[in-house]
Amino acid sequence: MKNRITELFNIKYPIVQGGMVWCSGWELASAVSENGGLGLIGAGSMDAKTLGVHIDKALAATSKPVGVNLPLLKPEVSDMVDMIIAKGIKVVFTSAGNPKTWTKKFQDAGVTVAHVVANTKFAKKCEEAGVDAIVAEGFEAGGHNGREETTTLTLIPHIRKVTSLPLIAAGGIASGEAMYATMSLGAEGVQIGSLFASAEESSAHANFKQRILDSVEGSTQLSLKKLTPVRLIKNEFYKNIHDAEYQGAEKEELLEILGRGRSKRGIFEGDMVDGELEIGQIAAMIDKVEPVYDIIKRLIEEFNTTADKMSPAKL
Amino acid sequence: MKNRITELFNIKYPIVQGGMVWCSGWELASAVSENGGLGLIGAGSMDAKTLGVHIDKALAATSKPVGVNLPLLKPEVSDMVDMIIAKGIKVVFTSAGNPKTWTKKFQDAGVTVAHVVANTKFAKKCEEAGVDAIVAEGFEAGGHNGREETTTLTLIPHIRKVTSLPLIAAGGIASGEAMYATMSLGAEGVQIGSLFASAEESSAHANFKQRILDSVEGSTQLSLKKLTPVRLIKNEFYKNIHDAEYQGAEKEELLEILGRGRSKRGIFEGDMVDGELEIGQIAAMIDKVEPVYDIIKRLIEEFNTTADKMSPAKL
Repeated sequence: MKNRITELFNIKYPIVQGGMVWCSGWELASAVSENGGLGLIGAGSMDAKTLGVHIDKALAATSKPVGVNLPLLKPEVSDMVDMIIAKGIKVVFTSAGNPKTWTKKFQDAGVTVAHVVANTKFAKKCEEAGVDAIVAEGFEAGGHNGREETTTLTLIPHIRKVTSLPLIAAGGIASGEAMYATMSLGAEGVQIGSLFASAEESSAHANFKQRILDSVEGSTQLSLKKLTPVRLIKNEFYKNIHDAEYQGAEKEELLEILGRGRSKRGIFEGDMVDGELEIGQIAAMIDKVEPVYDIIKRLIEEFNTTADKMSPAKL
Repeated sequence: MKNRITELFNIKYPIVQGGMVWCSGWELASAVSENGGLGLIGAGSMDAKTLGVHIDKALAATSKPVGVNLPLLKPEVSDMVDMIIAKGIKVVFTSAGNPKTWTKKFQDAGVTVAHVVANTKFAKKCEEAGVDAIVAEGFEAGGHNGREETTTLTLIPHIRKVTSLPLIAAGGIASGEAMYATMSLGAEGVQIGSLFASAEESSAHANFKQRILDSVEGSTQLSLKKLTPVRLIKNEFYKNIHDAEYQGAEKEELLEILGRGRSKRGIFEGDMVDGELEIGQIAAMIDKVEPVYDIIKRLIEEFNTTADKMSPAKL
């Protein structure tokens, strides 16, 4: 398959590995790129120096395109932009901020820019900013999430309606069937998070990967809606937040319970009790830790089987 | 297309019109059946006598199969079951209760039974109860909804994994693209609510239909989670509930704000301020009131166009 997403990013398969805090370092990103997808180094949990190290290692590990996911609200964002350009990264996925601020600088330096949105308002801002592609991420996605709670099935048609830009679906996708389904809605590629967070090459702690495998329906919940909504695994930390919210806690109290560094404690250091465990709803369907090679191979097989199954479908 | 859903219900298209309070009387149900889908009279907002009238009128209006959606928690459920059987209805969709209680009685009388679920726990109960088909309804659906908040994209693979029963997807479906997408996930048919609630033949008040057209992203919210979660349009009534919940209101206070008869007041009588306006997230994509004939025609055309677009898709 060739489409605007595979051509734009010069990749074999329209599969992007989402940039995820504490999961997607150089090892995961380069493995995904090496196997025909687009790997993204997640800058969200890195300082500029660490990001530089990961970029160097990723570029040494693969000659295929590898990108960076850059949350635009990072304090060091300006330094990071300069470094990404200087080190020769050619693909950046931005999120959590205004796409207008950095898109032109990146593009002037030959970097292709995609931006992650959860609603049409930001999709229109992407158009105005001149980004090259849009990632539309639904309610079922892990981590930070839109206030409208629009699910992927509902969001993709909304975004498709307001923009003709190349579109990548995200949220709830961990199989070739779901790839096929979201692409039939009008996406031209998918961004996959949770499934790659569980991969062998993910830098997440073994405890966190095991917790993904142990997840069942209802194991995650969109939480902290009075601050910034984030989808979390329901552990003890979550329960403390939930109980406080249930009783009407204000922002200040929630911030105090949240404290600092909790996602690192949970995802990277393996504290399953007090850590903040960000993962998507589809984690409940993941039942083994696999190398990226096997994951991508299976996605392709499932996609093609689904295509065969659906191809005679006519009403 | 022939599949287990079209054969089980003896319908041309695998399209079921969801039973909806105050929307799906005999007029909507018979129109959907007459146009090749499966129409369901929604008993949820009817007493037994009213249901009887609607069944009689529906059976007079079409010779094609027409069914009843029966929430099993209705006080008059036993009388309604007897009447449904006596009047010769051959298809019942049950919900909101244990599928074991009435399935056998219906089947012994030659009635085909489908049951609506939002999680695998109830899908397994459906298997044990021997129902003929399962409707899996995701988080984006209108009205009452599962506590796990599992979206349709995530839910269908879960249900498909635990049961081989014929499966109907519901929640977030108002286009042929979404039909195609959910069927590629393993569903063999779809149940459509919001789109038919907006149909000309729907018994909803004109104000409510206009409010569906006016909906945009974020216009609905899953609400009343301390009671039974229900997806509502954000009107003044919703805001009162939301404000109370935000401040930690207990069940008693919420029940008092809710009061009685609010869905009738909103959906049927057209009170857009104080009524309870149950609708799905996909309402935001609906932009005109159409007759059922046009709706089904468009769904088929969109499905077939999507099939053509996807048919050469291989990775």
